[in-house]
Amino acid sequence: MNPIPAPISPPSRVLLGPGPSDVAPSVLRALGTPTIGHLDPRFLSIMDEISAMQRVLFGTENELCIPMSGTGSAGMETLLVNLLEPGSRALVGVNGVFGTRMAEVARRSGAEVTVAEGEWGRAFTPDDLRRTANGGKFDVVCLVHAETSTGVAQDMKDMRAVADECGALLLLDTVTSLGGMAVKLDAWGVDAAYSGTQKCLSCPPGLAPVTFSPRAIKRLQSRSHPVQSWYLDLNLISSYWGGERAYHHTAPINMLFGLHEALRLALAEGLEARFSRHHQNGRALWAGLAAMGLELPVPRDERLAQLTVVRIPQGVDDDRVRGFLLEEFSLEIGGGLGPLKGQAWRIGLMGAASTRTNVTLVLSALAAALAEQGAAPAHGALAAAAAVYGEEG
Amino acid sequence: MNPIPAPISPPSRVLLGPGPSDVAPSVLRALGTPTIGHLDPRFLSIMDEISAMQRVLFGTENELCIPMSGTGSAGMETLLVNLLEPGSRALVGVNGVFGTRMAEVARRSGAEVTVAEGEWGRAFTPDDLRRTANGGKFDVVCLVHAETSTGVAQDMKDMRAVADECGALLLLDTVTSLGGMAVKLDAWGVDAAYSGTQKCLSCPPGLAPVTFSPRAIKRLQSRSHPVQSWYLDLNLISSYWGGERAYHHTAPINMLFGLHEALRLALAEGLEARFSRHHQNGRALWAGLAAMGLELPVPRDERLAQLTVVRIPQGVDDDRVRGFLLEEFSLEIGGGLGPLKGQAWRIGLMGAASTRTNVTLVLSALAAALAEQGAAPAHGALAAAAAVYGEEG
Repeated sequence: MNPIPAPISPPSRVLLGPGPSDVAPSVLRALGTPTIGHLDPRFLSIMDEISAMQRVLFGTENELCIPMSGTGSAGMETLLVNLLEPGSRALVGVNGVFGTRMAEVARRSGAEVTVAEGEWGRAFTPDDLRRTANGGKFDVVCLVHAETSTGVAQDMKDMRAVADECGALLLLDTVTSLGGMAVKLDAWGVDAAYSGTQKCLSCPPGLAPVTFSPRAIKRLQSRSHPVQSWYLDLNLISSYWGGERAYHHTAPINMLFGLHEALRLALAEGLEARFSRHHQNGRALWAGLAAMGLELPVPRDERLAQLTVVRIPQGVDDDRVRGFLLEEFSLEIGGGLGPLKGQAWRIGLMGAASTRTNVTLVLSALAAALAEQGAAPAHGALAAAAAVYGEEG
Repeated sequence: MNPIPAPISPPSRVLLGPGPSDVAPSVLRALGTPTIGHLDPRFLSIMDEISAMQRVLFGTENELCIPMSGTGSAGMETLLVNLLEPGSRALVGVNGVFGTRMAEVARRSGAEVTVAEGEWGRAFTPDDLRRTANGGKFDVVCLVHAETSTGVAQDMKDMRAVADECGALLLLDTVTSLGGMAVKLDAWGVDAAYSGTQKCLSCPPGLAPVTFSPRAIKRLQSRSHPVQSWYLDLNLISSYWGGERAYHHTAPINMLFGLHEALRLALAEGLEARFSRHHQNGRALWAGLAAMGLELPVPRDERLAQLTVVRIPQGVDDDRVRGFLLEEFSLEIGGGLGPLKGQAWRIGLMGAASTRTNVTLVLSALAAALAEQGAAPAHGALAAAAAVYGEEG
C-alpha cells in the first residue's frame, strides 16, 4: 500500500451529541495502560471490581453484573437472545428508535413479539401497556428507560406490577440513563438490563454493562434451545466472570481498564451529586433554548436532563447548522434519528460533558449558527441559563 | 460502595502467551487519543484508511473489509450467521479448539454441520476433506489457518478446488495468522475470513477484522431468513462502513484509533520483513527448546512460528511453572487449551513481542522454572537459539 496513511490526528471536539460523550483524561490514560493477559490474576481482580462498581450504578445486588464485549446494541442482543427462544412471547414498548430495535432483535431471537405502540416523545403509563397486553401472558416485557431518539425518560413506577400481571420478566434498556440518572433495578423489580459505556459513563464506546437477576438466570438455565449466539451466551461467559474463570473469548482488556476508571470516577463523585449535576445542567440548557424561542417537544416532567431534543425551526437547514457548529466551534450535536431526521437536534450533556461551560458554549454557538442563516434567535439565552445556576439546589 | 477501588495499576508484563500480545507504545497512545464522534467526517476517513490497510494484510481486493465491534470470536460468528441459515450445510475441518468452535457456532446458526475430524497437532490435506465431503454439496467449507490451540499452520494450497467440488464458499479463520504470516485470500480463493486484533497485529483485544468476497456478499443478499444476529448483520453494518454512513451501532472509536496505528506499524515494517522476523524468532525458539530436551509435537513444516506448542515434561507441574514465570519474570506464557490442558505450553512470539530479546528471555526463564522443580534442562539453549540468528536470511 502506497502511501501508508499518516498517524491519526483527530481534532479536539466537544461532544454534545447523543454519544459518544467527552471522555475524562484519566479514562483515556487508563485505556492506554500496557495490556496484560485476560487470565492474569491481577486482571481477574480488576474484573471483580468492575462488577462490584456496576452493581452500585445499576442499583442491584445481582451477582451476574458484567460488561459484555460489544457496544450497547450487543447488550440489548445479549438480553434478548439469552432470555428468548422460539415460542417465547415478548411485549415490547415502542415509542422511539430503540424500542423499535428491541422488537426487531426479539423477533430475530425467535420470539413472537407484541408491540405496545406509544407516542414518540412521550413515556408509557402502566395502563398503556396493560391495554396492549390485554390480559395475555408473556415471557418478557421490554422497556427503554431513556429513549435516546426522543429524549424521553420512562418512569418505572408500577411497571413491575404490569410484568407480574403478564407473568413476565421485566427487561430495561438503560443505555442513556446509567450514570446520568438514578437506575434502581432491584427497587423497580427489573430482571435484566443493559447499558453502554459511551453515554453518561463517559467511557469510549465498546462495552455493554449487563445484569441478570437470579430469576432471569433461572430462565436462562431452563431454556429448551441453546442460545443462538455463541458469542453472547451467558451460560458460557458467566464461567469466565464467575468462579471458574474458564476461557470463553479474550476479554477486551484495555477497554475494561477504561471502564474501571470511568466507574470509579462516577462513584467518587457520588451518585446523588452526579445526578444533580446532570439535572441542573439540563434545566439550564432548557431555559436557554426556550429563551431563544426554540421548542422542546417533550413535556418537562418526561424530559431527560442528559439528552434534550429540540425542534429545528422552520426554514433552518439542519446539516448547515451542525456543519457550522463542527467547523467553527469543533462542537458536535446530534441530528434526529428515524422519523425525527431533519426535524430535531439532540443535545447531550452526558457524564464528563455535563458542565456549565458546555451549556454556555452550546447556547452561544447555536445562536451563532442560527444567526448565520438569518434566523437570529431571541436574546437572553445565557441569562436564562445563568438564572438556573442561581436557583436553590 | 465503600471503599471505592483504587485506580488500576497493572504490572508490566511480557506477553508471550497465545494472545493478547505486547502492544506497541504508539498503539497505546492512539488508544488514549480523545474520542470523536462516530459520524464525524474526520472519523469516516480513519475508517476508510482502516479498510484499505486491512485489505493489504488480508491479501484481498474485497470492498467489504471492516473490523467488527467485538473480539475474534465475534468475527467467527459474523461469518457464520451471515452466510448460514436453517437448511444450510457446512463442512468444518476440526483439528483443534477453534475448529470445534466453528462447528458449534455453525450449528447455532441453523446449519447442518458435517465435521471433518483431523488429528490435533496436524494440518489437513485436501484429500482429508474430500474423504469427509464424499462427493456431497455444501454451502460453506470452513478451515482454520493458524490453530491457536495446537500451533498448526494450515496450508491453503488446493483448498479452493475442494470448496469448488463441494459447491461451497471457502471460509477461513485467520485470528492467529493475520500480521504474522502471509495471508493471501484472493490468491487462495477464500470467500470470507475473520481475525482478531490481539495476536500478530499487537493491538489490544476487542475488534475482529473481517472480509467478504463479492460472491459471499451475493450469498448474504440472497438469504431466505434475516440474519439471526442484528448486531452482526452485515446487511446493516455495511451501510455504515460503505457509502451511506447509516448509523447502526456506535463504533468503538478508541479501539479503532488503536487498530489504525497497529495496521500502520505492520505496513511500515513491510509485510515480508515482518513475516521473516516472526519466522526467524520462531526458529530460534524451536532450536533453544529442542536443545533443552523439550518436545515440540507439531512437525516442523506445519509449525506456526508465532505460536509454539511445547509438551510439558513428565513430572513437571504446569501451574507451578507458569506461576513462577509470572512471579519471577513477569512473563506470561499460555497453558494448553481443551484436551491439551496440563499437557502443553503455548509460547507466542506475536507482533511486537516477536523479538530476539523475548526469545532469549523465555528460554532463560523457562530453564530457571524447570530447574526450580529439579527438572534441570540440558544446557545449550541460548547457544542453539543464537545460532539461528547467525544463519543466512
